[in-house]
Amino acid sequence: MTIKDARTPASTQNTAQADTAENTDTAEDTEAGKSIGWHKAYVEGSRPDLRVPVRQVHLTNGQSVTLYDTSGPYTDPLVGTDVRRGLAPLRENWIIARGDTEEYAGRPVRPEDDGIKHTSPRGGLRNLDAVFPGRPRQPRRGRDGNAVTQLAYARRGEITPEMEYVAVRENVSPEVVREEIAAGRAVLPANINHPEIEPMIIGKRFLVKVNANIGNSAVTSSIEEEVDKMTWATRWGADTVMDLSTGRNIHTTREWVLRNSPVPIGTVPLYQALEKVDGRAEELTWEIYKDTVIEQAEQGVDYMTVHAGVRLPYVPLTANRKTGIVSRGGSIMAAWCLAHHKESFLYENFEELCEILAAYDVTYSLGDGLRPGSIADANDEAQFAELRTLGELNRIAKRCNVQTMIEGPGHVPMHKIKENIDLQQEICDEAPFYTLGPLTTDVAPAYDHITSGIGAAMIAWWGTAMLCYVTPKEHLGLPNRDDVKTGVITYKIAAHAADLAKGHPGAQEWDDALSDARFEFRWEDQFNLALDPDTAREFHDETLPAEPAKTAHFCSMCGPKFCSMKISQDIRRQHGSSKGEIEEGMAQKSKEFAAAGNRVYLPIAD
Amino acid sequence: MTIKDARTPASTQNTAQADTAENTDTAEDTEAGKSIGWHKAYVEGSRPDLRVPVRQVHLTNGQSVTLYDTSGPYTDPLVGTDVRRGLAPLRENWIIARGDTEEYAGRPVRPEDDGIKHTSPRGGLRNLDAVFPGRPRQPRRGRDGNAVTQLAYARRGEITPEMEYVAVRENVSPEVVREEIAAGRAVLPANINHPEIEPMIIGKRFLVKVNANIGNSAVTSSIEEEVDKMTWATRWGADTVMDLSTGRNIHTTREWVLRNSPVPIGTVPLYQALEKVDGRAEELTWEIYKDTVIEQAEQGVDYMTVHAGVRLPYVPLTANRKTGIVSRGGSIMAAWCLAHHKESFLYENFEELCEILAAYDVTYSLGDGLRPGSIADANDEAQFAELRTLGELNRIAKRCNVQTMIEGPGHVPMHKIKENIDLQQEICDEAPFYTLGPLTTDVAPAYDHITSGIGAAMIAWWGTAMLCYVTPKEHLGLPNRDDVKTGVITYKIAAHAADLAKGHPGAQEWDDALSDARFEFRWEDQFNLALDPDTAREFHDETLPAEPAKTAHFCSMCGPKFCSMKISQDIRRQHGSSKGEIEEGMAQKSKEFAAAGNRVYLPIAD
Repeated sequence: MTIKDARTPASTQNTAQADTAENTDTAEDTEAGKSIGWHKAYVEGSRPDLRVPVRQVHLTNGQSVTLYDTSGPYTDPLVGTDVRRGLAPLRENWIIARGDTEEYAGRPVRPEDDGIKHTSPRGGLRNLDAVFPGRPRQPRRGRDGNAVTQLAYARRGEITPEMEYVAVRENVSPEVVREEIAAGRAVLPANINHPEIEPMIIGKRFLVKVNANIGNSAVTSSIEEEVDKMTWATRWGADTVMDLSTGRNIHTTREWVLRNSPVPIGTVPLYQALEKVDGRAEELTWEIYKDTVIEQAEQGVDYMTVHAGVRLPYVPLTANRKTGIVSRGGSIMAAWCLAHHKESFLYENFEELCEILAAYDVTYSLGDGLRPGSIADANDEAQFAELRTLGELNRIAKRCNVQTMIEGPGHVPMHKIKENIDLQQEICDEAPFYTLGPLTTDVAPAYDHITSGIGAAMIAWWGTAMLCYVTPKEHLGLPNRDDVKTGVITYKIAAHAADLAKGHPGAQEWDDALSDARFEFRWEDQFNLALDPDTAREFHDETLPAEPAKTAHFCSMCGPKFCSMKISQDIRRQHGSSKGEIEEGMAQKSKEFAAAGNRVYLPIAD
Repeated sequence: MTIKDARTPASTQNTAQADTAENTDTAEDTEAGKSIGWHKAYVEGSRPDLRVPVRQVHLTNGQSVTLYDTSGPYTDPLVGTDVRRGLAPLRENWIIARGDTEEYAGRPVRPEDDGIKHTSPRGGLRNLDAVFPGRPRQPRRGRDGNAVTQLAYARRGEITPEMEYVAVRENVSPEVVREEIAAGRAVLPANINHPEIEPMIIGKRFLVKVNANIGNSAVTSSIEEEVDKMTWATRWGADTVMDLSTGRNIHTTREWVLRNSPVPIGTVPLYQALEKVDGRAEELTWEIYKDTVIEQAEQGVDYMTVHAGVRLPYVPLTANRKTGIVSRGGSIMAAWCLAHHKESFLYENFEELCEILAAYDVTYSLGDGLRPGSIADANDEAQFAELRTLGELNRIAKRCNVQTMIEGPGHVPMHKIKENIDLQQEICDEAPFYTLGPLTTDVAPAYDHITSGIGAAMIAWWGTAMLCYVTPKEHLGLPNRDDVKTGVITYKIAAHAADLAKGHPGAQEWDDALSDARFEFRWEDQFNLALDPDTAREFHDETLPAEPAKTAHFCSMCGPKFCSMKISQDIRRQHGSSKGEIEEGMAQKSKEFAAAGNRVYLPIAD
């Protein structure tokens, strides 16, 4: 594998999204003539069209550190991106070359896909105006209803380019990737209609992943904002993005997001289906739902949350709860089941749904519609009844060659977290667990990124494969750009803390590089290695803004005379830099003391 | 016990610190005629001068929730506070009544106590100007060198007013408090020269406590700022405050902080001692150190960090570390040991130090001078060698009737955290553990409140009694007011999450009250019950600012049609509010379906 450098003099500029593509290495070389900051590089696999992006951080001591990179082509100054055209279809040739798919006319897009009634000219106009102008493209599906999934290939012993790509990304052998996917312990969400993504893998054997939710609602936000949030979230490290839009323009917003997203996109099709029946849960039907799933699969949605585990007999189990059903999908399905006094149409038609998903390689994210919404409701009968059903559905999905992960809670106090992952792994045959937090207390609205970051780190250490972020706005409002960043950074911390605790190979190198820089007062290196270089630099400069402070052997916390790191360094300088040298130095000093009568340095009180 | 209400029409206004005393209940009654918001109340013990403050939150449904309150008289509109006069000496009569102490002239304050040389008129002026103008008072100490400590009393079977006070605060019997203190499993830091404090207890049997650090440095900040940070930190929930000042005016800053602090104040006397020798570690002596300890004990410092476990033979153990010695106190003592090639003067004179502390009831916080400063250095030989020495010193302190807690790390990956608390509890005879985080990764400067909040919650669950907060500025600069608040709130989350996980009686009532409010769309109650009501309200109002939204049965996250809580409520309204009722309702519905030929509601695809 060779690392290719993308930082040659760039004539092609990143025009759209320029602000998200900004990186410090454009600030040039230091006086010492060394390049500082970071730049985008690529690790090439076994073929020239398999180039895995990395973030390469250049240190002032001449070394460099290679970090996992989720930011997509936006941070590569050699790639011209344009949100109106979308990203290049990286995987298109790989998909075509497999020869098991076909293009077809596809389902016509209807105004109601965007929540627009035929009688609403104003809505219609807005929709036409917003339509994605990029490459028109026919959808693709498995020929003759074939399961064209990474799971099917893995089981047949095939290592796809996607598998090799993630093997390079995760620094493991492609065979490990194939094995984990074949065993159902990992998923590689990659809809054949979303060729733009840079493949990634979700499984406990690999780096812990983070999902960021975006999406407009009936109350606020626009298409542009959602696309911007997506690129912003991936810039800070989101591994996947879920578009949870619930207002108008759901179809069109999703098209813009998908065409511009370098990471897998997840959705909850039920939200859009409900919009199509004007928010009346009881009017939902399997036909409307199925049509929505096909609509989204043709667009390229990589994984879908399906609340098929909310069964009719479980609804009464929530009656004595403190906070009832808090999952939107869960409550919609519960309302439907009660209104019709029927078993859930998702549960009843699950196998047919599997066949649809298999034809596009859409991955299941089996939703936990009955997850607890408060500390009081954690690990209760309703929650675990649904989990057992998810285990049953997981086996059906696997039989149909559909990749599957399982969603988890929610609100769970620390001492009840481990039971969640242990039960899930047992019941669901080690399928990847994908949890929302969990929040470890209910008392801190406005800080639920933190209440949940604690639970997220713990459950990821114990085996959760992907963490769904929570922003400071959880329970209070829709996250803005700052909230998205705070949520992603908090969850990257939780994920990385878990990687360390799991002893993931290579995880500690990052910490070590930063700690080395800290000990050696290489401030610029500390900033550039930080999860959020901008804020680290800004905080430092608040109290010591002058440029010389960047090379100062102290910071404003203790001031110049007091720095413990400086004292540690002085000790090493005076007494040697290894244990042996220091002991030898001490012995020498001891002899000098003895020669001086052992009195000079005696403490006064002795 | 009776709860006394401090919210009667207040003619006495809280003048100084008015901004920190602000509370929402001044905003009056709602339309429904119910009082909302919160107010300060007192729970009376067995005597009229034993009144324990609580924060009483009034809910719109007529109920109220009583929360632990650390904010001191500043939030009581009936108490007039004035930072220039200091707080009333709440405990003075209790101390005098014991009859085992005496007033004495005390050590004269010298300019060098504030880091001022006789030759520096400018510094001298500043110091005179800043001198605390409040009640002049002679220091007090144990008569005839008596140990006047809560530990000595507890061992003799005495329940002091301080013990009863914390028993009321913690909702346990006074005998439990006495037993825990007598066994050395808890400390009640309360210097007899700090009669202003509202007593609190630190021990694993009780609520997890949070310490906030303040302190000026050579680089920045003033006396006023430090006093303001102290009241600000306690307003948000800090249980103790450490004054870690290292610049000028150390003595005077501390005097202002102590006289105005309702919580115990901790210090690291070594910092001031070092200032007295102009920052040259090798010039430190036991005499200078001892004099500084007496100076601070006379002022009323409640607990002192003493790095007596950094012994000469341990220094070489740090030589191969990634980040050497990161504790300031630790590195100063290591430098002294190496410079003199002598055993630490703190270790050698530990028993004499115990006698001094016992005469004022200063509590030891035995410092972990060799704590790891990076993930790579966690749980290493140097760290645990020092811990074993702390165990030895803990026994000496106990023999001298000095209350003692043990400080802990630092930077520790999640899988190595439990070993820290387990070893500490074993080696130190269950003395309270007081940890700094630990930080679970090194890669997120600017977010170390979060990297460490994760570790703090876990180690507190496992038995740590007090958590030293970390602010977002850790490793980068001095915290400002906002950073102090963020640090305190993050650590209150960690502490409360641990209280929940430990099953602390009453801890979950707070979560339950907030979750009830959430489920019932009582927005104002959610805000008022939140750890940070202001920010919760502000975040909500950002997207739904109008007043009607405060009673709306939805929020901006999902919009009006989509709210899962609303759907849950609709289910209960339509089908009953208990499991039995819902099941009965379902059976009824089932009969109707059967009567209709079981066909009406069948899913189309069936």
